[in-house]
Amino acid sequence: MDKLKLIHDMAVDNGSKIVLLVMDGLGGLPMQAGGKTALEAARTPNMDALTARASLGLSDVVAPGFSPGSGPGHMALFGYDPLENLIGRGVLEALGVGFELRPDDVAIRCNFCTIDADGNITDRRAGRIPTDEATKRVELLRQIKIPGVEIFVEPVKEYRFAVVLRGEGLSGDIDDTDPQRTGVPILPVTSRTPAAEKTAEILRQFVAAGEKLLADHAPANAFTLRGVAMDPGLPKFPEVYRMKSAAVAVYPMYKGVSRLVGMDVIVHDAESPAEEFAVVKEYWDKYDFFFVHIKKTDSYGEDGNFEARKKVIEAVDAALPDLLALKPDVLVITGDHSTPAALKRHSWHPVPILLAADTVRNDPATEFGETACLHGSLGHIRHTDIMPLALAHALRLGKYGA
Amino acid sequence: MDKLKLIHDMAVDNGSKIVLLVMDGLGGLPMQAGGKTALEAARTPNMDALTARASLGLSDVVAPGFSPGSGPGHMALFGYDPLENLIGRGVLEALGVGFELRPDDVAIRCNFCTIDADGNITDRRAGRIPTDEATKRVELLRQIKIPGVEIFVEPVKEYRFAVVLRGEGLSGDIDDTDPQRTGVPILPVTSRTPAAEKTAEILRQFVAAGEKLLADHAPANAFTLRGVAMDPGLPKFPEVYRMKSAAVAVYPMYKGVSRLVGMDVIVHDAESPAEEFAVVKEYWDKYDFFFVHIKKTDSYGEDGNFEARKKVIEAVDAALPDLLALKPDVLVITGDHSTPAALKRHSWHPVPILLAADTVRNDPATEFGETACLHGSLGHIRHTDIMPLALAHALRLGKYGA
Repeated sequence: MDKLKLIHDMAVDNGSKIVLLVMDGLGGLPMQAGGKTALEAARTPNMDALTARASLGLSDVVAPGFSPGSGPGHMALFGYDPLENLIGRGVLEALGVGFELRPDDVAIRCNFCTIDADGNITDRRAGRIPTDEATKRVELLRQIKIPGVEIFVEPVKEYRFAVVLRGEGLSGDIDDTDPQRTGVPILPVTSRTPAAEKTAEILRQFVAAGEKLLADHAPANAFTLRGVAMDPGLPKFPEVYRMKSAAVAVYPMYKGVSRLVGMDVIVHDAESPAEEFAVVKEYWDKYDFFFVHIKKTDSYGEDGNFEARKKVIEAVDAALPDLLALKPDVLVITGDHSTPAALKRHSWHPVPILLAADTVRNDPATEFGETACLHGSLGHIRHTDIMPLALAHALRLGKYGA
Repeated sequence: MDKLKLIHDMAVDNGSKIVLLVMDGLGGLPMQAGGKTALEAARTPNMDALTARASLGLSDVVAPGFSPGSGPGHMALFGYDPLENLIGRGVLEALGVGFELRPDDVAIRCNFCTIDADGNITDRRAGRIPTDEATKRVELLRQIKIPGVEIFVEPVKEYRFAVVLRGEGLSGDIDDTDPQRTGVPILPVTSRTPAAEKTAEILRQFVAAGEKLLADHAPANAFTLRGVAMDPGLPKFPEVYRMKSAAVAVYPMYKGVSRLVGMDVIVHDAESPAEEFAVVKEYWDKYDFFFVHIKKTDSYGEDGNFEARKKVIEAVDAALPDLLALKPDVLVITGDHSTPAALKRHSWHPVPILLAADTVRNDPATEFGETACLHGSLGHIRHTDIMPLALAHALRLGKYGA
C-alpha cells in the first residue's frame, strides 16, 4: 500500500488554500518541573483566539522516543514517511549551505582530519579548526580537476565541508571512509555496487589530489568522506497533493528540502516572521499551498535560551493577523520536532499542533500549548498524518473506496 | 504479520455474546462552531446511563484525514484492514442492489452512455436518464445469451446498472472501458492477465450484442464497464473470531457486505430500530455475535438534515432497553464513519465509540458524545481495533505469547 499514491488518487483541486506554518523545534519543556513551556509562557492572544475554530493535538514526528533531525522532521511534515525516506547526509549538507543540487548530482559530507607521517588519523576533526581556516583549505581543494566530472567544494562549518560531483553515470553507493577512530588510516574509497565504481574511482583521485594539496596544512592535512548520497527522487509534493506549492524560508537547509520535494522556493530578503508573512501575501494568488518556516525557535532552544525562544513565538503571534487576513481555508501551526531550552537539543517529545479551519470538530481548548493540546480533538497523531488532515479539512480529499 | 490469524489463534468460544450496533455515519459536527453534534444534541438517557459501565473513545476508520466509503468503513468495523482489503466497485454495486453474489462470480459496475454515429462518447452518463428508463434498457440487455456463462443484469439507479457473470474460470482482472472523457470512443475490453482473457472475450461479445440492442435507444445507446471485480475471498468472520455471527440490516449494501465476510444475514421485514432489535431478540439464542445496522443516521447526514439525524439517534436510544434486556456481555455502539449534516458528506472526523461490558476500565464520561469520547478510556483508536477490543472485553481472547 503506497499511502502517497492513495492520497494522490483521492486529491481534488478545489482552489482552497492551505498554510503550513512551522516554528522549528516548537515543542518544549518547562525549565523547572511544574512550570510552563516556552509556547505556554509566551503571550499569544492571536493563536489562543484561533482555538475557537481549531482542532488541537500532539504529534510524534517519527515514532515515540525518536528525536528527529531537520531532514526527517520536514520529510514527515510534508507527508513522506521519514523511516522510508531518509535523505542522505551528503545531500542535507549540500542543501544546508544553499547549494542548488540537481537530481543526478552526488553530494558528500566531508570532515577535515589530521593524519601523522604514517597516514594514521590523530584527530578526526582536525582540532575543530575555525571556519575561516577550513575555507582556505576548501579553496585549495577547488583546484582539483578530474576529466568528465564537475566538482564543487563548499565550506560548511569548522572542520566540515561538502563536495558535489556533477556528471554522467554517477552513483551514491559509496562507503564512508571515516574509520570512526584514531590511530588507523583513512579507509580506501569502496563502491557498494559495480555501477558505483566509476564514482569511486573519481573520489579516489579526488582524495589523492586533495591529500597532496593539504600535505603542509596540518592540522587539516587530510579529510574523510561520509554520507555519499544523491537526491532520493521523491514523488513531487505539488503533484502528490495537486497543489501549486511554495516555500517561504530564511535558512538554506529548509529551502533545500522544499526544493527537493518540488516546491517553488520563493526568493526574498525577509527575515522576521512579519516579513515572511508579507512574502506569503505577495504571492497569495499564485499558490494553493504555502510552507512557512520560522527558524529561531529552534536556534534559541539549542542555545538553552528560553526567554529568546518565547519572544520568537510572541513575534510570530503578533504578526499572525497578517496571515489570517489572507483567509487561508486551513492554517496549520506546528513544529518539525521539539527543542526544549531545558535540554539544549532536539528532543522526542510530541509536538503541539493547531489546525484552524471551518470544518474542524472543535475542542474545549482556549489556548495553544502543550498541555491544552493533550486534550485536543486531533488526538495523538503522527507527523505524516498532518498533510492528509490539512487536505481533508480543506475539502481537498474525496472518499476512500465506495 | 497477519493480524486476523493472530486473533484467530487467541480466540476462544466461551459462549459470551457481543452486539455491534452501528449507526451509519454516526460521527458529526455542530451546525455552528461551539454548538453540539447530533449525538450530543439528541436526548439519549439510555446511552448516557450506559457510560457508568462503559469505556468511550474516538476511532479513525482508515487513517487520519481519510473519509471512508461504506465498503472500507464496514471492512474496518469487521476487523479487516481497509487499506489491504478494498472491495471492488463492481462487487459493492451488485451487493448494493441485493444481488446474492457467489465466490466465483465476476461483478461489473456499468454506466449507460451516449455515443454518436462515429462511436464517440457524447455523454458519459446518458443524460442521467431516470431509473425506469434505464430499467427498460436493462431488460433488453437481459436477452443476451453467451454460451458457457450465465449473465445477470440489474438496474441500480439512473444511468448505473450492474452485470454479474457466473461460470467457470472467470477473472476480475479486466480494465475499465470508460475513457473518462467525451469525444473519444469507448475503450476496448482488455485483460490484465492471460487468465482473464476468457472473461475479456465474454465481455467483448456482451458489449457488441448490447450496443446492437441499444442502437435505437439514445441517449442510452451504449455503456461502459467499470470496477470489474470478484469476491475478494476474505477469511470468514465467524471462523476468524470463532463466533456464530448474524447481521440485522435493512439496506441491501450492508446485508451484502455481511454476507461477503460470511455472516448469516437474517431475513426480516423490520425497518425501525425497535423492530431491528426485536429481530435480534428473536434470534438471540442462535448466535454469539450480532451486527445491527441503522442506516438513516447517514442518509439524513448526507441530506444536511441535522434534526432528522438527531431523531434517529433518539429512536435508537428509546429502543435500547430492549437490546440491553438481552444482557449482551459486550455492547459496542459506534459508526462506520462520520457524516456531519454540516458537510452533507462522509467525513474524516474520528467516530465516537462506546463499549459497555463488566470488564471495562471505566472513565469519567457521563454521556455519549464526541466531546465526552475525547477523554474516554479507550483513547484514540483505529476501527480495526474494535473487534479485538470487543472480543477481549467478552473474555474471548486468550494470551498473546507465553
